[in-house]
Amino acid sequence: MLDAARGFTPADAVVKNGLVFNPFINDWERGDLAIKNGLVIGIGTYTGKTEYDLSGSYVIPGLIDAHVHIESSLLAPREFARLVALHGTTTVIADPHEIANVAGQQGIDFMLAERPGACIDIRYLLPSCVPATLNDTGGATLDARDLGQFVGCDGILGLGEMMNVPGVLSADPVIGEKLRLFSLRDGHAPLLTGPDLNAYILAGIQSDHECTRRDEAEEKLRRGMYIFIREGSTERNISDLIGLVNLKTVARCCFATDDCHADILCDKGHIDRCVRRAVECGLEPELALRMATLSAAERFGLSDRGALTPGRRADFCVVDDLHQFIVKKVFVMGKVVHPAHSVPRKSPPSPFTCRLPSADELQLTGSGEARVIGLVPHQIITDSLRYTLAAHEIPDIRRDILKVVVCSRYRDKECALGLVHGFSLKRGAIASSISHDAHNIIAVGTSDAEIHRAIEGVIRSRGAMVAVVGETPTILPLDCGGLMSTLPYPEVVQRLKDLHKVTECMGSIDDPFMYLSFLALTVIPSLRITDRGLFDVGESAHIPLFLQ
Amino acid sequence: MLDAARGFTPADAVVKNGLVFNPFINDWERGDLAIKNGLVIGIGTYTGKTEYDLSGSYVIPGLIDAHVHIESSLLAPREFARLVALHGTTTVIADPHEIANVAGQQGIDFMLAERPGACIDIRYLLPSCVPATLNDTGGATLDARDLGQFVGCDGILGLGEMMNVPGVLSADPVIGEKLRLFSLRDGHAPLLTGPDLNAYILAGIQSDHECTRRDEAEEKLRRGMYIFIREGSTERNISDLIGLVNLKTVARCCFATDDCHADILCDKGHIDRCVRRAVECGLEPELALRMATLSAAERFGLSDRGALTPGRRADFCVVDDLHQFIVKKVFVMGKVVHPAHSVPRKSPPSPFTCRLPSADELQLTGSGEARVIGLVPHQIITDSLRYTLAAHEIPDIRRDILKVVVCSRYRDKECALGLVHGFSLKRGAIASSISHDAHNIIAVGTSDAEIHRAIEGVIRSRGAMVAVVGETPTILPLDCGGLMSTLPYPEVVQRLKDLHKVTECMGSIDDPFMYLSFLALTVIPSLRITDRGLFDVGESAHIPLFLQ
Repeated sequence: MLDAARGFTPADAVVKNGLVFNPFINDWERGDLAIKNGLVIGIGTYTGKTEYDLSGSYVIPGLIDAHVHIESSLLAPREFARLVALHGTTTVIADPHEIANVAGQQGIDFMLAERPGACIDIRYLLPSCVPATLNDTGGATLDARDLGQFVGCDGILGLGEMMNVPGVLSADPVIGEKLRLFSLRDGHAPLLTGPDLNAYILAGIQSDHECTRRDEAEEKLRRGMYIFIREGSTERNISDLIGLVNLKTVARCCFATDDCHADILCDKGHIDRCVRRAVECGLEPELALRMATLSAAERFGLSDRGALTPGRRADFCVVDDLHQFIVKKVFVMGKVVHPAHSVPRKSPPSPFTCRLPSADELQLTGSGEARVIGLVPHQIITDSLRYTLAAHEIPDIRRDILKVVVCSRYRDKECALGLVHGFSLKRGAIASSISHDAHNIIAVGTSDAEIHRAIEGVIRSRGAMVAVVGETPTILPLDCGGLMSTLPYPEVVQRLKDLHKVTECMGSIDDPFMYLSFLALTVIPSLRITDRGLFDVGESAHIPLFLQ
Repeated sequence: MLDAARGFTPADAVVKNGLVFNPFINDWERGDLAIKNGLVIGIGTYTGKTEYDLSGSYVIPGLIDAHVHIESSLLAPREFARLVALHGTTTVIADPHEIANVAGQQGIDFMLAERPGACIDIRYLLPSCVPATLNDTGGATLDARDLGQFVGCDGILGLGEMMNVPGVLSADPVIGEKLRLFSLRDGHAPLLTGPDLNAYILAGIQSDHECTRRDEAEEKLRRGMYIFIREGSTERNISDLIGLVNLKTVARCCFATDDCHADILCDKGHIDRCVRRAVECGLEPELALRMATLSAAERFGLSDRGALTPGRRADFCVVDDLHQFIVKKVFVMGKVVHPAHSVPRKSPPSPFTCRLPSADELQLTGSGEARVIGLVPHQIITDSLRYTLAAHEIPDIRRDILKVVVCSRYRDKECALGLVHGFSLKRGAIASSISHDAHNIIAVGTSDAEIHRAIEGVIRSRGAMVAVVGETPTILPLDCGGLMSTLPYPEVVQRLKDLHKVTECMGSIDDPFMYLSFLALTVIPSLRITDRGLFDVGESAHIPLFLQ
């Protein structure tokens, strides 16, 4: 290696004539990039066994996603890797929070087992909050001892987004035990400010990806936090936050995608999309690239990447135009990436010890003033609405009030029923085994028969997204923990599009499965539904459907 | 702690009305700085049991020296700490290279034992090159196994300046073993460039403090190195290098003092002096402060300091004017520093198993064309001069050719004799137990009797700097390994000044002890003298005094 670096022997590969981005000077430099054994060995004048002429191109260190839930892509990790690699991403920091809520340690084991053979480097932070709350019933509980078994495992970097802010602030010993497991701790503290923010940081939490306001992000950055600016499927914060980034602050700013469906990743991109969006919003390309490379590498102590200097991984992508930023070639460990589809070697446990609800169970009774969950377009918050109605009037297509059903995935128990406004379905039903964070089965529809059929489709597939019109189901199987598919990503994207075509015919709003998946999320206002029934977030209590 | 951060209970101390430097935004902010248990718990609005009104002042995170040899101050570590603390330094990264060359592991043990009770935080890197070369005979050899015993010790951060560049480049396995001990490795590679620099970095070396040229520093920084810009007693690089520092590069630039005598530290300052000098040279004060705080903390993975944000050490200094930059108050772990003198609890071994040379031994014989070491003003390089002379003509005051003597400190053996030009002594002699890096006894003088008396003074004190005129010795005892004094720093400074007064009366150039201490340094061109005789650096061989 040293002899090759000194130019005495040829390198394995040399990339010539490109403009190489150097984040240490936030600028470009010209020079041969010499590679051996997967590492950069030098920049200068070199010869190699293989030489790439990249005249007219920009060579950029591999892009890094600072926070992502791979499960949200609907792809198994190696397939996710294959898809994002094509967009220039070579490292992701993932939190297997979703699969851990379904399958506990075995879920994490599965995600770890996917690392070898993935065409990019996947690193994990351990999910700090499983279950996320005690308001619904998921598949697992992970305490500090459970998490402790992963300390020192290859691929585990630290503790993932600590979303139990009250627990941190009140010095809950259970939280303290988890925080002490690792020195690297990611945060999750939307809108936290002032003395409480100070306390949260004092407790040892170092980053946040939940900022939605510029002043919020700036306060957190001043207090020493890394800010991950997020652009996911629905959470899109770049336009609001990017003004924070300048030469003074860029070392503490990264990009994250958090939750992104495969179709968005495929059609719009991954961290490349973040770079494009940031540049569209007025950021200098070099600052965006610094965020996507060295800043993220340094945040996670990954001193072996983030720049193309001797001893670091030869992970990089090639683009021809900094504003269009279309990645045309990607190298991982010095080799061009041509990833092939691979089926996971084994699956995580996918518990479906539930039963199909009977027709009786799906039947709603009562009348009077009812509480109805109101969707809010482009938001994951919901409204708490009230309508006067009688159960037999449901579905009330005119007023857009539909039945919503939650069936436990994990227990043989009765399902919970509620009402929702805003899906705009005129016919049919949809169901899914993705419902944050417990991931019970959730369905909404215009008839009990179609709801029943949709739920049946989910259970039969042992996890799926299903749309039913009449007798015809359209299915995207999520055979991997009920959250991810083992299919190749083009097929997953196609099936997602098929599902959306069907729901469009039903009269649905765009992307109804996304809204559906958040209806059980009891940490976000206002009204939710869990496997135990209707839930008022403000009151932090389950409540009856009809007002007494 | 959390309750205090949240403002529910009072802090231990609150610093009010100061402008606080925030390196995360490279700017100033106003707000109460709240402290508890030695840590910052918040910035905002707080009340404390003790409150400090710092209206009109700047509050700056404690300054950090990224590379220093404490021994060069002539002070024992706790006394050194006391002196630099008054200048705003609260953390130093020290390399006990000098004492290790004298006393090996026990020397390092001594330095570690001084950490508790020091008023600042002293962290060490292990000396990587003991002995520095095989050309002279020091007191110890430290191989990887010896160094390995310190891995994991409190206060040890990594491997110190790897100065054996040829060993690194040729993949010397002995060097490789040492490099593998730590992931943090400081470098020392003056003027290294191009492919060899790539190879040196590829070998895992991450920093350099030996840059003297702007283009040199810029190349190293581009290749991913941290650059420690040095301003020591004699090595003063700020004016040449500071142009390298800007918002794009500042995160990788730090200050270092390397070697600084107590008198310079006392009269001119420490890292505060670097900040002043950098600002004089045109750097924005905020960039200089970023270098002196967060950049250095991050280089050494010290995430508990470098900024005044929740959870970090409440180490800071207070100044009234950013350009004068006179430190008027210093806090360490939230308390005002009022350091008192403390004598080291124990001393390192200070081997003086040598003997006083006899009058015969000091006698030079021969005549003809002689090789004479030529001092170069303000440099540590020397010239290799030639003069036609006879031994009995020495001292040749007219031509300024004096006798130089090296006596082993470690072995009962004959001394080595040579000739030197440039000290300009008209009478008397000086001797010292500091001579890099083996630290044998070295003397120069105008008469054998005075040389003899000076060496005797060094040996009697078991280490000292001595100036003799006639029968009268003036002594600064270096009772601590023959390198450091256990006296309080004001006394050391006074005695240094007394010595310089005497040498001035002798007709000497300024600071002759400094020049003397480098005459045995066989890694720097051109002509040197060791305990084995005259040494030609170019030839890497000992050579006779008279040309044959």
